[in-house]
Amino acid sequence: MRLEILPVPGIGHVTEGDDLAVLIGTAAPWLRDGDVLVVTSKIVSKAEGRLVDVPADGPERLAARDEVLAAETARVVAARGATRIVQTHHGFVMAAAGIDASNVDKTRLVLLPEDPDASARALRAALRERYGVDVAVVVSDTMGRPWRNGLTDVALGVAGLPAIRDHRGEVDPYGNELQLTQMAVVDELAGAGELIKGKCDQVPVAVVRGYLNAPLTDDDTGARALIRDASMDLFSLGTAEARAAGLSAAATLPDGTGEAPADPAAVGRAITAVAGAVAPGTVFTHVTDAGVRAGLVATVPGWPADASGLVLCSPPTPVNPPDLVRFGGDVHRLRAALAAEHIPTVLLPPPTATTAAATLAL
Amino acid sequence: MRLEILPVPGIGHVTEGDDLAVLIGTAAPWLRDGDVLVVTSKIVSKAEGRLVDVPADGPERLAARDEVLAAETARVVAARGATRIVQTHHGFVMAAAGIDASNVDKTRLVLLPEDPDASARALRAALRERYGVDVAVVVSDTMGRPWRNGLTDVALGVAGLPAIRDHRGEVDPYGNELQLTQMAVVDELAGAGELIKGKCDQVPVAVVRGYLNAPLTDDDTGARALIRDASMDLFSLGTAEARAAGLSAAATLPDGTGEAPADPAAVGRAITAVAGAVAPGTVFTHVTDAGVRAGLVATVPGWPADASGLVLCSPPTPVNPPDLVRFGGDVHRLRAALAAEHIPTVLLPPPTATTAAATLAL
Repeated sequence: MRLEILPVPGIGHVTEGDDLAVLIGTAAPWLRDGDVLVVTSKIVSKAEGRLVDVPADGPERLAARDEVLAAETARVVAARGATRIVQTHHGFVMAAAGIDASNVDKTRLVLLPEDPDASARALRAALRERYGVDVAVVVSDTMGRPWRNGLTDVALGVAGLPAIRDHRGEVDPYGNELQLTQMAVVDELAGAGELIKGKCDQVPVAVVRGYLNAPLTDDDTGARALIRDASMDLFSLGTAEARAAGLSAAATLPDGTGEAPADPAAVGRAITAVAGAVAPGTVFTHVTDAGVRAGLVATVPGWPADASGLVLCSPPTPVNPPDLVRFGGDVHRLRAALAAEHIPTVLLPPPTATTAAATLAL
Repeated sequence: MRLEILPVPGIGHVTEGDDLAVLIGTAAPWLRDGDVLVVTSKIVSKAEGRLVDVPADGPERLAARDEVLAAETARVVAARGATRIVQTHHGFVMAAAGIDASNVDKTRLVLLPEDPDASARALRAALRERYGVDVAVVVSDTMGRPWRNGLTDVALGVAGLPAIRDHRGEVDPYGNELQLTQMAVVDELAGAGELIKGKCDQVPVAVVRGYLNAPLTDDDTGARALIRDASMDLFSLGTAEARAAGLSAAATLPDGTGEAPADPAAVGRAITAVAGAVAPGTVFTHVTDAGVRAGLVATVPGWPADASGLVLCSPPTPVNPPDLVRFGGDVHRLRAALAAEHIPTVLLPPPTATTAAATLAL
C-alpha cells in the first residue's frame, strides 16, 4: 500500500464563470477512480464569482475591507491590533474570515466559497458526468491555529468521503479501547495536498492517489462535520475577550443562590484572594456550620450576626459614610472573587430590626 | 514531481532500550536519501523508557494518573469535567500532556519523549551512521485543536528539515506580496504520514518520499520553532478560565490611572452596561469636559462635585448605612465595567472639607 500525491499543473488563471471540472479534467486527463482532489478554495471562489471590488490602496481600501469583513463575520472570536479572528457564517474560525488579497488583482478581494461542501459535491458530480471518473473532492484553505506557529491547509468542504475517520470501538493489541478515535482525515489530506502545491508554482490542485478505493461513498455530511459548536468549545473566545467578559460579569453580577452548599475551601480561597485589595481592618467571616448556599451579609458594628453559614462582612471601625462606600466596594470584590470560584451570592441587607439601631450607632 | 507516502510495516512491539534505528533500518532497507520518516512518538517514548507504572484500574489508577499528569504539566490551559488541556514542559498544548494509555500494557502509561527534537536528531544520525542514508525525521503525535472536530497528527520533533517553510518576500503573479508566509510543513508531513499509518494496522512509521532532496540540511531549530509563546497567543487560556480570571481581576482591581484620556464613548458604554444592575436611583455622571484619565468620585448628597472630568457617582436619596454599602458595591460594578473597557480607575474620597458635613448630613 502506498499513497501518491501528484500536482495538477497547467490550470492557469481562473476567472468568474470558469468551469472547474473542465479546467481540471483537461489539465489532468490521468485522473482515476478513487483519487482525492485537493482543490485550493481560491480557485473555487474565483470560478463562483466570490470576489468584491475594493480600492487598490489608501484608507478607502481599509474601510472597504472592514466592511467586507463585517459582512463575512458571524461572530468576532478574538482581536488584537489589526488582527481579527472571526467565526464565518459557515462556522469556520479563521483570521479575517478567510478573505484573501493574494493571487488576485489589487482591486479585488476573494471571499470563501458560499458553501464549500456544495462546491465540492458539484465538482465531484461534474467530473463524474463529463469524464466518467469517480473522485473525491476536498476544498482546502490555509489557516492558522492557536498555540502553534505556522499555518497548515485544512478542509473547508468535502465530497466523496467522510470528513472524519472514526476508530471508535476499535481495540489495540493490548486490549485497550482506543481513546483517540476521530481523525480529521480530510484536514490531513488538505495538508498533504499543500505539501506539493507549496513546492510548485501556481498549482492550485493536487491529487492524493491510493487513499480511497472506488466506488466512493456518496456520504454528504461534508466538512461541516468538522465545525465544533462554540458551546462545546473550551476556546470559544479569545483570552482577552473572555477576561473582559469576566470583568463585565463582575459589573453585572446578579443575585443568585447555588444549587449546593458552597465548598468552604473555595470560599476561603475567595476571601484570601481579596484580602490584599480591601481596606485594612475589613473582616470577612465564613460561618461554615450550616448548609450555606450562597449569601453575604454586610454588617456594621451593632448588627447581629445571626446568619449562620453565610459570609459576614464587617468594615473597619469606626465607620463613616465614605468608609461604608468603600466597604460596599470591598464586599463586591468578594462577590466577584466568589463568582470566580463559581459561587453565586446575594448581598443580604442587615436584619430589619437592627437597621435603625445601626443607623443610630453611626 | 510527485510525493509518495509509504508505510513501514514489520516493526513490531517496541520496548525500553530498543534501538529504533535498527528496527526501522531492518524493516525498511529500501530507505533512500531525502526520505522523510514520520515516526509515531509512542515508539520513541517506549524505546526511551518514558513509561510509568500505574495500577490497572480503580481510584488508585486515577490518582496515579493525576499525579503523572501534574508532573508533566507546566501550566493548565483549560479544564472541563475530566478533560485537562495543559501546556507541557516542552511547550506543547495538548490534552492530558500527551500521556497515553493505548498500545501499552494496562499497568503503564506512556509519556511524551523528554526532548522530541533530540530524539529526531539522534534517530537521523543513527540511520546515517549505520545505514548510510540521509533522511529527515519527524516525531509525530495526535492532537486535538480548538474550533474543529477531529484530531490530526502534528510534529513534536524534527531533524533534517526546518519545521516551517517561509514564503516571506515572495510575490504572486499579480504583484501582491504573499500574506500567508509561514507554512508548518512538518505538521503537514506528520498528518500525511498518519493517513497511511491510520489505514494500516500497527504501522508506527511512514515515509514521505519526494519532498526533500538530499543532501539534507542540518538545520536543528527543530519543532520547538512551532511553539508559540503564550504571551503572543490570543488563546493562551480556556474561555472559562479567562472569564474567571476577569472575575478575579474585578475582585482585586487595583487603583490605576490611564496613560491617555479615557474614551468618553467607552465610559458611556460602561455606565450603560451597569445601569440595570445597580440600585434604582443611582446616578453615574461622566464629566467629559476635561482630559479625564480615570477616576471616580462616590458622592453622597451634600458633597460638592467639583471633580471635573471624572465619573461622579451618587446613591439614591435618602441614604442610610445599608444603602451606602449597596452604593459602594454599585460603584465597584462600574469600576469593573470600566476595566472591561480597559479604563483603569481610582475610587476617590470626597473632598476632605466636605466629609464631616456629609457625615453630619446623614
